[in-house]
Amino acid sequence: MRPWERYFRSVVPYVPGEQPREERLIKLNTNENPYPPAPGVAEALRHMDAEKFRKYPDPAASVLVKVLADYHGLDPEQVFVGVGSDDVLAMAFLTFFNSGKPVFFPDVTYSFYPVWAELFGIPYETRALDDDFCIDPRDYDGENGGVVFPNPNAPTGHLLPLEQIKDILEHNQDVVVIVDEAYIDFGGVSARQLLENYENLLVVRTFSKSRSMAGMRIGYALGDAALIKAMSDVKYSYNSYTMNMPALILGAEAVKDEAYFRKTTQKIVDTRERAKARFADLGFEFPDSLANFLFVKHKRVPAVQLYEALRERKIYVRYFDKPRISDYLRITIGTDDEMEALFSFLESYLN
Amino acid sequence: MRPWERYFRSVVPYVPGEQPREERLIKLNTNENPYPPAPGVAEALRHMDAEKFRKYPDPAASVLVKVLADYHGLDPEQVFVGVGSDDVLAMAFLTFFNSGKPVFFPDVTYSFYPVWAELFGIPYETRALDDDFCIDPRDYDGENGGVVFPNPNAPTGHLLPLEQIKDILEHNQDVVVIVDEAYIDFGGVSARQLLENYENLLVVRTFSKSRSMAGMRIGYALGDAALIKAMSDVKYSYNSYTMNMPALILGAEAVKDEAYFRKTTQKIVDTRERAKARFADLGFEFPDSLANFLFVKHKRVPAVQLYEALRERKIYVRYFDKPRISDYLRITIGTDDEMEALFSFLESYLN
Repeated sequence: MRPWERYFRSVVPYVPGEQPREERLIKLNTNENPYPPAPGVAEALRHMDAEKFRKYPDPAASVLVKVLADYHGLDPEQVFVGVGSDDVLAMAFLTFFNSGKPVFFPDVTYSFYPVWAELFGIPYETRALDDDFCIDPRDYDGENGGVVFPNPNAPTGHLLPLEQIKDILEHNQDVVVIVDEAYIDFGGVSARQLLENYENLLVVRTFSKSRSMAGMRIGYALGDAALIKAMSDVKYSYNSYTMNMPALILGAEAVKDEAYFRKTTQKIVDTRERAKARFADLGFEFPDSLANFLFVKHKRVPAVQLYEALRERKIYVRYFDKPRISDYLRITIGTDDEMEALFSFLESYLN
Repeated sequence: MRPWERYFRSVVPYVPGEQPREERLIKLNTNENPYPPAPGVAEALRHMDAEKFRKYPDPAASVLVKVLADYHGLDPEQVFVGVGSDDVLAMAFLTFFNSGKPVFFPDVTYSFYPVWAELFGIPYETRALDDDFCIDPRDYDGENGGVVFPNPNAPTGHLLPLEQIKDILEHNQDVVVIVDEAYIDFGGVSARQLLENYENLLVVRTFSKSRSMAGMRIGYALGDAALIKAMSDVKYSYNSYTMNMPALILGAEAVKDEAYFRKTTQKIVDTRERAKARFADLGFEFPDSLANFLFVKHKRVPAVQLYEALRERKIYVRYFDKPRISDYLRITIGTDDEMEALFSFLESYLN
């Protein structure tokens, strides 16, 4: 080790799902939307003026913030935007979880939470989901430095009902509670409506799933103006301009087309419900997902074996070699055709 | 104060230069390039396919990294890209400055350095520039946790010769030394050529100035593969996908047109040299800048008064109300027409 390497920050990075370059494959491994962004996005792209790129973008991202505030019936002061919900969540961890007390989150959840905690030196304790992968609100009672969970949860797809979120908030009134709603638009009920009553609630969203904009890296948070101000201050202490011009312009455009949004999310919901029946027929078990993926376990064939067999057929799904979930595959809901290819392979492989 | 606010991270954010929305003004306050990006950027924008945005971008940013590696004659393993050089520098602070010993940087320098240090709890000591705003390499001797300085320095424009950078590196072989070359392309000599001999050197660059791409948020670092690997690990612990698809595609395109790059940077250099003569004639003093800005002080009229008078005429320049530099204005080199408007106002105002 050379002397200057002694003090490199030591981390165990989050490992994102594979992003193979090849075009001819069925990619059901990173929960992307199988449908393109709203037509207005392509239209706005065609009218974008490259000459404007010479100037800095608006550091306050006002255009995008305004559209999101209007969409959610909030003030612009209640909206924070970032480079995907990962950036937003990282900023929230850095901003809010400084008490030195452990932050609570589920044992089976988005695997970036412990990574951010380690990166920023935030103590944490995981709370075990029950055998059906459900959160018990009582596990979040007691002194802590904050609470964070995805809803629906990842990678299970399980939705926590609003009443139980309220229950968690009622028992955690001294800390910031983050509800990570990356997958809420596929049939879940948002905690957005709890913002009026809980000023310590932060709701986090992304454009990567329901808005078909993973490639643009846009996420946002909704909350009390004091929470948003605190996050913005930290953001301005990190990078003044996080959102580039295309993200601001195209992001605002993507929110405007509500009809397209409803149509595409509904298509994914319909495909998911049909997929549930097919998976059950094939001998799979799974939590009742309300996300754009299913978390499936076969009664007989090990997950890793299926994962490899699918991969050979150029069907990519996600496998997590982790405690409690190593028998499962997380499979993104694709188009009907993509799902048909998946099921037709599984049928021949399993029978 | 509500209970959950007690543990908000407390910061004093960096304040970026104003980004007024109005179009009809002369904007010489944030060191943007007065010329548009290379024509290939507009061309690539016209061919961009919005349908692809539904997928995640390449987390390794390989297309952009490869172009930059080739451009600088390095391996892709020696290049790190981020959301502007601010993101790159923040990641470098977080990755390399963990010894608990104070990091050294000049007292008059990029004002984001102390902000990052505070944000991440990094101790630091400033080293006073001499009366001509020059760095004395001897001030960087002695035990420290790392060294960082811009070259040319901001907001002075003063260039440290390569021999003196070597001198600093020779006396700091146990820590990471960061040379922040945001403004190197306007006549400076890059520390890039020192990379072969100093494995602890990190050179940071941006697309925001010489590449006319402030609006796209692209910065990068060059260094030994071990430095880049450590930064990438930290980056993957923060946000897997920082660079969106337009940044990757258009960034790669911007680097390809060397002729346009040379032509536009040379125009700015020529305008700057003419501006030096005009400022001197008008009774201004300034360090001999090799950046795309001049740091000027009038013999008679206070800087803040000139700043206000210019602002009223819709000519924006940068004023820093800080020790040692509150008599100065930092004025970006614009087009010849913009500079003519500036000088014609100053002539009538000062005489």
